[in-house]
Amino acid sequence: MNIEISKLSNGLTVVTDPMAKLESAALGVWVSTGSRNELPPEMGLSHMLEHMAFKGTTSRNARQIAEEIEAVGGYLNAYTSREQTAFHARVLKNDVPLALDIVADILVNPTFAAAELERERQVVLQELGQARDTPDDIIFDHLQNVIYRGQPLGWSILGEEATVAAFTPRALRDYSGRQYRADTMILVSSGAVSHRHIVAMTEEKFARLATGSAGRTPPAHYVGGDIRVEDDLEQAHVVYAFPGVASGDADFYVAQIHAMVLGGGMSSRLFQEVRERRGLCYSIYAFTNNFQDTGFTGIYAGTGETETAEISAVIAGEMEAMTGAVSEAELARAKAQLKSGLLMGLERPGTRAEQIAGQIFTFDRVQSVAEIVAQIDAVDGAALKRYGTGIMTQPSMAAVGPIKKLERHDVFAARFAHKREAAE
Amino acid sequence: MNIEISKLSNGLTVVTDPMAKLESAALGVWVSTGSRNELPPEMGLSHMLEHMAFKGTTSRNARQIAEEIEAVGGYLNAYTSREQTAFHARVLKNDVPLALDIVADILVNPTFAAAELERERQVVLQELGQARDTPDDIIFDHLQNVIYRGQPLGWSILGEEATVAAFTPRALRDYSGRQYRADTMILVSSGAVSHRHIVAMTEEKFARLATGSAGRTPPAHYVGGDIRVEDDLEQAHVVYAFPGVASGDADFYVAQIHAMVLGGGMSSRLFQEVRERRGLCYSIYAFTNNFQDTGFTGIYAGTGETETAEISAVIAGEMEAMTGAVSEAELARAKAQLKSGLLMGLERPGTRAEQIAGQIFTFDRVQSVAEIVAQIDAVDGAALKRYGTGIMTQPSMAAVGPIKKLERHDVFAARFAHKREAAE
Repeated sequence: MNIEISKLSNGLTVVTDPMAKLESAALGVWVSTGSRNELPPEMGLSHMLEHMAFKGTTSRNARQIAEEIEAVGGYLNAYTSREQTAFHARVLKNDVPLALDIVADILVNPTFAAAELERERQVVLQELGQARDTPDDIIFDHLQNVIYRGQPLGWSILGEEATVAAFTPRALRDYSGRQYRADTMILVSSGAVSHRHIVAMTEEKFARLATGSAGRTPPAHYVGGDIRVEDDLEQAHVVYAFPGVASGDADFYVAQIHAMVLGGGMSSRLFQEVRERRGLCYSIYAFTNNFQDTGFTGIYAGTGETETAEISAVIAGEMEAMTGAVSEAELARAKAQLKSGLLMGLERPGTRAEQIAGQIFTFDRVQSVAEIVAQIDAVDGAALKRYGTGIMTQPSMAAVGPIKKLERHDVFAARFAHKREAAE
Repeated sequence: MNIEISKLSNGLTVVTDPMAKLESAALGVWVSTGSRNELPPEMGLSHMLEHMAFKGTTSRNARQIAEEIEAVGGYLNAYTSREQTAFHARVLKNDVPLALDIVADILVNPTFAAAELERERQVVLQELGQARDTPDDIIFDHLQNVIYRGQPLGWSILGEEATVAAFTPRALRDYSGRQYRADTMILVSSGAVSHRHIVAMTEEKFARLATGSAGRTPPAHYVGGDIRVEDDLEQAHVVYAFPGVASGDADFYVAQIHAMVLGGGMSSRLFQEVRERRGLCYSIYAFTNNFQDTGFTGIYAGTGETETAEISAVIAGEMEAMTGAVSEAELARAKAQLKSGLLMGLERPGTRAEQIAGQIFTFDRVQSVAEIVAQIDAVDGAALKRYGTGIMTQPSMAAVGPIKKLERHDVFAARFAHKREAAE
């Protein structure tokens, strides 16, 4: 990788990541703000702002934004997470200047027109309804909410109907003025790009960007708890969680490998035990969620009503087993999976740009592939045992669907009480 | 592209598609069989066979299959469609021989053990339940079912509970013996691969593959109709369809561009009218489904209960408008979108391998990029008008959710009656 990083005079970070042989590029701006940066009446405002960025600037209306990028066959998209908002484009190489111009325009010159907000409010309310109709989507919101109870990190990215209904153009401008500042934004381009050109264009197009730093991100910590939503579905959706680590933690790759061994692929313990040996689930996997200052390890299971009676004990058993020995073969396999995932991701410009932005936010620099591989290779059985034991203290759970037979959370949590006592 | 194609002595087609600079490869076998090739008691058997291929061979059990591919950080996956079943792997370049060995093993030497089938049956029944819980998934099954009423092409890929419950190892062997034959299979590898090596390995690993041709695919034709499933959801899901073209039809790219102008992106007519101007939907798009001998153009809308009252008239209006003039700008934009999608897809080995297999099934050869671009460029306003007018004869509809206010299908269909009469 031949990454170059420049900091413009206004504070904006510009990164280029040229990829030989590519005829296209991915280009975007990542903003270090998301739902955890919202005040209570702003729940969902980061996401609404992401939508409204496409609804018109001082020189382009919504239709022109869509038509200009699609006229060259490009894609323009955006997403909001709990800590980031991203605006990104995929274009063929000759259209990089156009993509950069449009991305800059929607970030620097949005109008947040009242009439557009009224229409887009209806669209977002529908998006909210759709999320609520999707149990394996909404369940992760429920989980986040109980883990970070009473904290902005626990809020839903889409917000609440009441807050979305009350958003005003003024609220968008206030939030944007507070959070969309040069110091908290990174422009990354991967693919058929040249640093000199990108920097020159960015200097010009982002000249009017507000300088300085954004408001402080409120700290968060794992509280934990459980939520059960009984519903007349064919499948039950259950997700368990345990306290994990932050994105920049020294144990980040320990947590990744722990999740991989536990439930990261077809050869993982959970897949083999729960799906292959017992036929209990169509879908089961482990994952980690990592934020600036906190994180968790989770296990998702989609299962039938009858099978819910059995699932908690099996998962508790596999969690317990992870406090013991992990075989050399399992460890080697998990490392190979992480490393090949990393290498294959390097072949996709969109993935590269996103990872570069994430690393700069976390470490203020880009880690080399060799450095990441070394961190993966350094994880050993002792570290996994330590991590696997340490996270057992405080389980959380969210469940949706036909869950009458699912073990009560206090019973499930009691399975881990001895670990908690040992840790205290 | 430097594609090479060989036909082995047993009839198996082997394609390599080397990509310079790549450190990984995608490799898979595409089998020209799917749910439309099933007999009535076999509904869902193509999909069950896809699952069972991973459950053990004469030399590897299920766990070994999973462990061997994941030990090198590879992925092994499969899917079943109405006309194809695919088994594909993604690996780093040195692991191509291993991936090919495993893919060959699961296709040539599966055991279909009874105990494994019992467990996997439970997994598939859960997958069925999960699909039924996902309205924007199941609605496409409903649509397919009414369009191809009474024909295997109208069946659900997952099958029915009753058929899945009755599958035996014998049924798997019968279907496999009938459909999994060298003449109907294509091995494609894209990325860091060499034709000489792949052919040599394939000759050896697939030596015991059954030769000859599969059973004839039953013909299908558009019948049409409607289905409404009232359900207590927040969002209504509606999908409309109109008779389209087969995969190999001379109008294939006319249909693609028609769908792109109508509802292919943010600048499309439906997105602009339905989401941007009226705020009626979070999600709306047009698409085409194309099969060997038939196809359709569809429009999906996810919308609120109140908005369902309005949606049918708006969609009928946009369909009607597509029988008139399409602007030069719209036509150019749709072509640019198709072409850049094509070029960006060329950067991903998995996408390339899949497209190559599809082209060989349809045309018995691989079309060059220039040839596809020429076909796209040849589409003009007159062709779009002709296609847009021709498909108006026989609308179909599937709807799920809070749809009491949704226009009845006979009323919706009557909007197109004059077109039907004109066509007759």
